[in-house]
Amino acid sequence: MADAAAGGAEAPGADIRLWQRLRVRWAEVDAQRIVFNGHYLTYFDVAVTEYWRAIGLPYPDAISDAENDLFAVRSLVNYHAPAFFDDWLEVGIRVARLGNSSIGFEFLIRRGSERVASGEVVYVNADPVARRARPLPERLRAAIVRFETLAVAHDEDASDAPRAG
Amino acid sequence: MADAAAGGAEAPGADIRLWQRLRVRWAEVDAQRIVFNGHYLTYFDVAVTEYWRAIGLPYPDAISDAENDLFAVRSLVNYHAPAFFDDWLEVGIRVARLGNSSIGFEFLIRRGSERVASGEVVYVNADPVARRARPLPERLRAAIVRFETLAVAHDEDASDAPRAG
Amino acid sequence: MADAAAGGAEAPGADIRLWQRLRVRWAEVDAQRIVFNGHYLTYFDVAVTEYWRAIGLPYPDAISDAENDLFAVRSLVNYHAPAFFDDWLEVGIRVARLGNSSIGFEFLIRRGSERVASGEVVYVNADPVARRARPLPERLRAAIVRFETLAVAHDEDASDAPRAG
Amino acid sequence: MADAAAGGAEAPGADIRLWQRLRVRWAEVDAQRIVFNGHYLTYFDVAVTEYWRAIGLPYPDAISDAENDLFAVRSLVNYHAPAFFDDWLEVGIRVARLGNSSIGFEFLIRRGSERVASGEVVYVNADPVARRARPLPERLRAAIVRFETLAVAHDEDASDAPRAG
Repeated sequence: MADAAAGGAEAPGADIRLWQRLRVRWAEVDAQRIVFNGHYLTYFDVAVTEYWRAIGLPYPDAISDAENDLFAVRSLVNYHAPAFFDDWLEVGIRVARLGNSSIGFEFLIRRGSERVASGEVVYVNADPVARRARPLPERLRAAIVRFETLAVAHDEDASDAPRAG
Repeated sequence: MADAAAGGAEAPGADIRLWQRLRVRWAEVDAQRIVFNGHYLTYFDVAVTEYWRAIGLPYPDAISDAENDLFAVRSLVNYHAPAFFDDWLEVGIRVARLGNSSIGFEFLIRRGSERVASGEVVYVNADPVARRARPLPERLRAAIVRFETLAVAHDEDASDAPRAG
Repeated sequence: MADAAAGGAEAPGADIRLWQRLRVRWAEVDAQRIVFNGHYLTYFDVAVTEYWRAIGLPYPDAISDAENDLFAVRSLVNYHAPAFFDDWLEVGIRVARLGNSSIGFEFLIRRGSERVASGEVVYVNADPVARRARPLPERLRAAIVRFETLAVAHDEDASDAPRAG
Repeated sequence: MADAAAGGAEAPGADIRLWQRLRVRWAEVDAQRIVFNGHYLTYFDVAVTEYWRAIGLPYPDAISDAENDLFAVRSLVNYHAPAFFDDWLEVGIRVARLGNSSIGFEFLIRRGSERVASGEVVYVNADPVARRARPLPERLRAAIVRFETLAVAHDEDASDAPRAG
């Protein structure tokens, strides 16, 4: 119930453009025979790496320098269904919020059509030494906006365009 | 600002009775030279283990059986300051909410008097096979209430009560 | 020097049939900016999972039962060159020795044509409760022999067969 | 058999001066309900950290600089008995070999009087950029020799020396 937006026609994750597949490793499963809750943040992080690559700014070389680096300030995971050893998972990622110095990622982990987990991680751009927040570098902001706008455009294409039968 | 309750006289963590010390391992620090964000959930989990022991119901033997086990359904971490290799950290834990079938833990990680991270993890008691929620076993609920009440009582003793001697 | 068998014409890993690709995750790299030494055993383990699948006996369902399970008794890693964040690695695996109750895997991790690590892990089949060694189940032994013989046959094909062109 | 030195009167680990206690975490145990084999290298590494501290040269500040750092080149683990969740383990460490540029650590992990694992890790001192081996810094070598000699002296004291009082 909570998953269905009122009157929404879109499937969960319809606004997500980038999906990263990964397979659950034996070492990630605990004695409950399910993935240990902390490892989902590693899965999210794998998707973040792919996000930087997808927007053309691979981390750390294109993002981190003497005056800028990204630091996690908040993470949230909702566990909807357990993931098991050897499961193929898809980790979807998008930027849901862009602040002056912060980037808010949203994540959705699916196994086939089933939601396994969802969540968010917020990063703040900061001086690596003083750890004081700094505005996001303009080219980073621009690359994110371009990527996510393309994603929206893609969705509109998919939903609005007339289709030949 | 967010840390100071309005008019509150208490230090952060004053309502926490159980603190678990641990030292940051080399393998937990990433190329930013700080603890990787996902490992905080492992630190929280170490404190959860000590919590069950402290209330006299060590996990899994005293808590998990054929009909009951606890599954994480939500985790939240706020990262206030980076933790570094070899840091001594204290992980504070308390139960902040008890639902019919759920337990909401709150955490605070300190390095000396400095807040490093805070957060929460919510567990639901469920049938291990069907994964359907079940009411918390009564002795588990009672042990938590007793422990947290003692914590409150302890605080009151410490701050309010007249003392002999 | 140590890598070249005297008079050998084969490249390192020429006798390995199964290669599993994986990409180094941020969380696997430590403050030296290289993969932490312990994570190579996780990489080896990922290859072991693929090995069971490749021989038609996926772990644990086709291998572990009430009377049999495989337990690591020895692991060895030689680190030839550091692996870095985001590197694509290939983990090669083969069974080099089959004892009465033991399986000796050999591993080679490459980055392109460069050797990154090599090593071995020995597993013993044992009763999961008493932890006493038991002979390898016959179908497990047969599947390994078949797979490795095919590998040899494949190599022979590759090296001995006349080729047009 | 392999554990008993011929005619030796000493218990396993009698030549080890430094023991580090640690408790097995839930996240370190896999679906076999035992510690995943790779995590023993993390346990070894925790002991290495304590070793540097014990000899008065805490890593990395007192050991790693622009021209020197230590890199693992070989690790070996023998698994004698499984370790379980919540076990208290003692990780013993000593330097068994000192080469021109290499340090060979030996490890023994005990649970009470029971051997759980043993092994070794060899580090080489190298230029952090070129990764070329360099002689061990003299003060590092001296500190190790002093510490291990003290260990031997301590053992002799304990076993042979007459004691007053």
